[in-house]
Order: sequence, then structure tokens, then C-alpha cells
Amino acid sequence: MARIVQKFGGTSVADIDRIIRVSHKVKAELDRGHQVAVVVSAMSGATNKLIDLCSSISPLFDSREYDTVVATGEQVTAGLTAMALQNLGINARSWLGWQIPIHTDDVHAKARIMSIDTDELEHRLAAGEVPVISGFQGISDRGRITTLGRGAGDLSAVAMAAALKADRCDIYTDVDGVYTTDPRIVSKARKLTKITYEEMLELASQGAKVLQTRSVELAMNHRVRIQVLSSFSDKVGSDLPGTLVVDEGEIVEQEVVTGIAYSRDEAKVTLLQVADSPGVAAAIFGPLTDAAINVDMIVQNVAPDGKSTDMTFTVSKADLNRAVSVLEGARDQLSYNRIIADSNVVKLSVIGVGMRSHAGVAQRMFKALAEKGINIQVISTSEIKVSVLIAEDYTELALRALHTVYGLDAP
Amino acid sequence: MARIVQKFGGTSVADIDRIIRVSHKVKAELDRGHQVAVVVSAMSGATNKLIDLCSSISPLFDSREYDTVVATGEQVTAGLTAMALQNLGINARSWLGWQIPIHTDDVHAKARIMSIDTDELEHRLAAGEVPVISGFQGISDRGRITTLGRGAGDLSAVAMAAALKADRCDIYTDVDGVYTTDPRIVSKARKLTKITYEEMLELASQGAKVLQTRSVELAMNHRVRIQVLSSFSDKVGSDLPGTLVVDEGEIVEQEVVTGIAYSRDEAKVTLLQVADSPGVAAAIFGPLTDAAINVDMIVQNVAPDGKSTDMTFTVSKADLNRAVSVLEGARDQLSYNRIIADSNVVKLSVIGVGMRSHAGVAQRMFKALAEKGINIQVISTSEIKVSVLIAEDYTELALRALHTVYGLDAP
Repeated sequence: MARIVQKFGGTSVADIDRIIRVSHKVKAELDRGHQVAVVVSAMSGATNKLIDLCSSISPLFDSREYDTVVATGEQVTAGLTAMALQNLGINARSWLGWQIPIHTDDVHAKARIMSIDTDELEHRLAAGEVPVISGFQGISDRGRITTLGRGAGDLSAVAMAAALKADRCDIYTDVDGVYTTDPRIVSKARKLTKITYEEMLELASQGAKVLQTRSVELAMNHRVRIQVLSSFSDKVGSDLPGTLVVDEGEIVEQEVVTGIAYSRDEAKVTLLQVADSPGVAAAIFGPLTDAAINVDMIVQNVAPDGKSTDMTFTVSKADLNRAVSVLEGARDQLSYNRIIADSNVVKLSVIGVGMRSHAGVAQRMFKALAEKGINIQVISTSEIKVSVLIAEDYTELALRALHTVYGLDAP
Repeated sequence: MARIVQKFGGTSVADIDRIIRVSHKVKAELDRGHQVAVVVSAMSGATNKLIDLCSSISPLFDSREYDTVVATGEQVTAGLTAMALQNLGINARSWLGWQIPIHTDDVHAKARIMSIDTDELEHRLAAGEVPVISGFQGISDRGRITTLGRGAGDLSAVAMAAALKADRCDIYTDVDGVYTTDPRIVSKARKLTKITYEEMLELASQGAKVLQTRSVELAMNHRVRIQVLSSFSDKVGSDLPGTLVVDEGEIVEQEVVTGIAYSRDEAKVTLLQVADSPGVAAAIFGPLTDAAINVDMIVQNVAPDGKSTDMTFTVSKADLNRAVSVLEGARDQLSYNRIIADSNVVKLSVIGVGMRSHAGVAQRMFKALAEKGINIQVISTSEIKVSVLIAEDYTELALRALHTVYGLDAP
């Protein structure tokens, strides 16, 4: 007997038929003798509708009231899913964040889980009851409903799995696992049966949408075994049809490169002929930090005149206009010649824990791209990742070339 | 300074514009120096959508989960209304049933309020804060969300007004008060400035839809002054533009007849030639009671043969088919000759506390109807009410005639 947390995202509970389908997935695990706790998201689209209501009252809404409003999405699906389970003769009940309770801090709309009281749930799991938990939400010390931020349904599930010491946290979603790269672009992309936390974290933060970054971090810290799998397949988690996100030690033969991510959310800013003096980087990035603009990749080159420097960095596309106006406002201090903004770029990231012990991974990337005539604009590396910025038009060509070069193509 | 509970029904909070309008009504009372607590319903249509979701999972849904699901409607409007108030610079926050808490029994989907903790609300009202309370809901001793039954938003408001010892409970709705009769039928109908609890109770239970019966009972028991008024007028409650429901002592000059209600929800059942023996009434109504069918008006006449009796009674239209089949099933015991079912009937009720001290009210009714050639099928009376059942086609004709006869026509 294993204890399993099953998490069903918005598309998996999008309508009544799908909720009924979810109830059968729960039953299948119970029938194998497992204990199951369920975590549900809001029906897809529901959260956006609720946010629109809040925004149309005021763009500067009170985040405490926002939380009260948007938490209803998961409340509805928890109730409906419990009903569907009862229809199958299963002893199930809904649990809202405040009922468990899931204690959070009071940073509304992006609260952090502080602790989860599991005594009552443990008692009921032992008695064969299935708790159906509203994801995404908790309660603050002040007794107000809090939410954990967009996409935090996964986080709730991982936190519950950690608190309940579950054997596995199955994340049911609309894809059937984690792929070597986006299969919509690279037809030879392969589904991975296992991936390490570190790699999953890089994939998620470098643009792969399959799991939320915070939930992978939490899983890594608490060694929660996550499985990403499709809610539209007939298989259930115990068949291990998806991708397991696990500790490095669990993966016997590690590939050098596990996956390739891409992010179209990058925009490039270049400051031409900045005075090359000590402290210039701080002078540039200070005002951006003050404006809460995150900078990702950074390169600094000597300018052609030899006396000044060209500084290039990337921000998210949504921040581009703001970043440019912040820098224009600081032109007197920075004394640069010109700003060039370019949003037609994409960031490709080659990821794998095997890189730590293998040299030449970056070199192979540069060579493969050069052979296709693709110019690399910015490079950034970490222990298990090499990222390059290229022109957006080359995204598909580059992804397919790299996928082949690193031996990831399906046989 | 007065303390006012303002209740806004579903049509008053149907969309963002109306919620903003509501916020201005609250502000108008605060600007006059009053303390205000707000009770809101779900946006109109929201509750039906939630109920449909539950029903489509299973017609026999768990009422505890049903409550968890449908209570979200009021949760959403409480949050949005608090946001709208904050936009006007008002210190407001939402309160859900479990946060106050409003303690109820655990008869889910039609729970009764047991007690309301007002310490924290009192404290905040005194500090100038406006609590925005989700109507329709509470919490059971077991920590589950309960709801009070359809239309119980009014009940929540009256209960809050009683607990907070409010000077007035203003029920904002889509009509501007209580009328002598339905103004859509009788153009000369007048809005009443005051009406007694007893009369309002009879009006509500005899078919007038303006206030829910249970909330009038509660107001009467706790002497809560209710005002029914329109949320679409520019006036607010303190202008007293609506109809006050008050103690009899507050109404100086009492009319003999205050209003005339009608209910199309009646259906008539006649059992011909029932054996006229002791216990026959019990034999007829026992099986109906067992089937949870409410019987309203009853008359028993000697049948033409002198040995048996004809029994006529009314049930709600929704119960008619069930009532007939229950009686057909009990035919052997009852030994009647025939059942006649007729749903083309309407019940008219003339209501007024003045009847207690005035004779001849019923006689005037019978005479007025006779003069218009309207046949009375069943009669039932109480201390402050005379009801008759007539053919439905005569509804408008009869209402207009009675309205004139009792001197209710607007000048």
C-alpha cells in the first residue's frame, strides 16, 4: 500500500464529464489498495473570470479581498469532485484551505505556506476516507483566506504530499509527461521516464510550462517524488506512465543533456558606448532593480572605440518598455550613446546534470548553431545549463538541430 | 446616529456597475453619520449556475458538498463589494459566514441560525469599519459551511440586524416597496409606507414575492424594523422611500384591509363521494403528509346523495401529480367515487390586521366577486386574512374589483 497525492489541474476538471473522469482515476488507485488524497484546481477559465471581476472594480484592488474572491474557484471543484467520488461509493469530503488548515503568511495573492495541520487528515486517510483539497489556498494568522499565486495548485499538492509523507505526488495535467523538448516543434522529442529535480527546475525556469518552478523547489527540498502524467490517458499514476521527477541518485544512467527549453518571453536591451568606468554596471542595474524589473542574461563587450563599453542584457518582454524608459530617465548619469531594444529574440537552454562531468557541451551547441548559420547574441551558463539568445525566427530550426546533436531524437 | 444593516439582493449586485452603485448607497448612509453593516447575495444567476453544476454530478448530491459549492456565490460578491467600498475611501472588509462566525445547525442546504458572534463586528463598527457579510451562509459545529435555503439572504440580514441591535434593516431589491397589490396587474395599486409584521407575513406566505416568509417571522420575533426599498432609486434608506415593516403599535391609523395577494401556485383536488365516516379526513391527508405534500385550503361538503361527502383541498401545482397518484394508490381505503384535479385556479387573499375589529370584510369580498360573476370555489379565513380560490382566468378582474371595493385605489 502506498500513499498517493493526486493533483488535477484546471483542464482536468474543466467540466462535469472531466470531474467524473477524475473520480474514476481516484477509484482506480483506491482499488489497488492505496491511500489517496486529492488536490484540485479551479475549472479552467474560472480563475481568470474571477480575476477579471476584481480588475474591473479597480486595477488597484485589495489583495485580501482578491484572495476571498478567487479562492472560490477551487472551492467549487473540491465540492463537485467530492460529490463525484461519493457517486462511486467512495467516502470523500472536500477540505478548504482554512478547514485543514493550511497556514500561510499574510502576503496575500502570493502567500507562502508556513505549516499544514495533518492530524485530522491522517486520521481520515487511515479510515479510508478521501480528502479532496482545494489547491492554491490557505489561511493567514488573521483568519483571512490567502492564495499562493498563479499556478500554485501544483505547489499545494507538493506541500500536501510533503506534509502527509506521501510516497508519490501525481500531477495530472494536459500533457503526458516531461519531454526532451517541445514536441509541437520537434516531432522527434522523447518523453522522459525520469528527470532530476535540478534539471526539472532549470527546464521550468527556462520556459517549459509543465510544472511550476516553486513546486519543483519545494519537492526538491522535501524529496517529494513527483510524477507528471496525462489526465486524458486511461492509465493511472501507479502504472508510472508519466515522467518521474526524482533525486539524482535514482537515475542510474544519466544522459549528458536531458532536455532543451526555449523561452520567447525574453527581450534584449543594448546600451551602446557606455562610459567604461568602475561601477557602471551598478549604475545601470540599480534603477532597474528599483523598478522591480528582473534582468536575466548580461554581457559586456569593449566597444569599437576602445574607450567605452557596450552592455547587453535581457528582461521579460512585458517589462521591456518600462526598462527602456527607466534607462532613458537615467541617461545623464549613464552617458551612453544609444539604446537598442529588440524583442524578436528567443532564449534556448540546453540542460543536463551530466554536464558537470562532461566537457564540450557548450562548444557542441555553438558549433551546431554556427553550421545552421544562426548567430548567437548572448550566452549564459550555469553548472547544468547553457543558454543562448538568438533571433526568434530561428527558434524551430535551432531546437531541431540541437535535439539531434545531443542525441535526444527518438529512435 | 443610527446603526443600519443594508441588504442587497442578487439583482442589486448583478454586475460590476451595480456593485459600484451599491457602494455609493453605503457611502450615502455613512456620510449621514450612520454605522453600516452590509449583507450581500450572490450575483443574480450565479446560485442557479452552481446548483446546476451540483445537479449534473448527481441529483442525489451530498448537501454538505452542495453548501460548499453554492456558498461561493455570496463569497464572490462580498469580496467585490468590499473592494468597491475601498475605492471610495471606505474602510471595508468582507466577512464570510465562518469568519464571523454565524453558527447554524447542521441541516445542510436549509440550516437554521443558532447564534451570531458579534464582538469583533461591534468593535469594528465602532471604529468606523464597514463589514460586508456574505448572506445565505454560516458554519456548523463540525466546521462545515452551511447554507440557509433559497432566498435566505433576507434572513441573514434580519438575523444580523437582530444580533447587532440595528435600528433598521434596509432590504434593497428590484421593487421600491410593498404594494397594496401587484402593480403590474392593478395600475391603481399604491405603495404602502408602513405595514405590520403580521400583514407582511400573510402577504409573503400568500404569494407576494417581495420578502421571504422566514425573514419576516424572524424580524417579528426580534422586533427588527425592516424597510423594503429599490436599489435602482437614487434615494437611500434614511430617506425612508420604501415600505417599513414594523410593529402594529407604530401604525397610527390602520386600514381595515392593507393588501391583496394572489398565488397562481395552487392546484385543486376534489374527491367525489368519499364515505362520510369518522376519520375520513385523517385517512385522506395521512398519505399526503407521508409523501411530504403540503395541503393548504380544505373544504368538506355533504355530497348530493346525502350519505357521502365531497372533499376539496389545494396543494401546490408542483405537487399535483404526485398528490393524485398518492390518492389513487389509497383508493381502496378511501372508497371515493372519482378524483377531479384542476390546476387552473388562483388563490386571492385579502389581508389586514384591521379585520380583527371590523366585521363584514369577507362579506364585501363575496359580494364584489359575485357582482363580477366570479364563482368562489373554496374559502379559508384566519384572523387577519380571507382567502378564496377562483378560476385562474378571473385573476386580474377579481384583483381590480377587490382593490376598489376595499378603498385601496390610489387617488
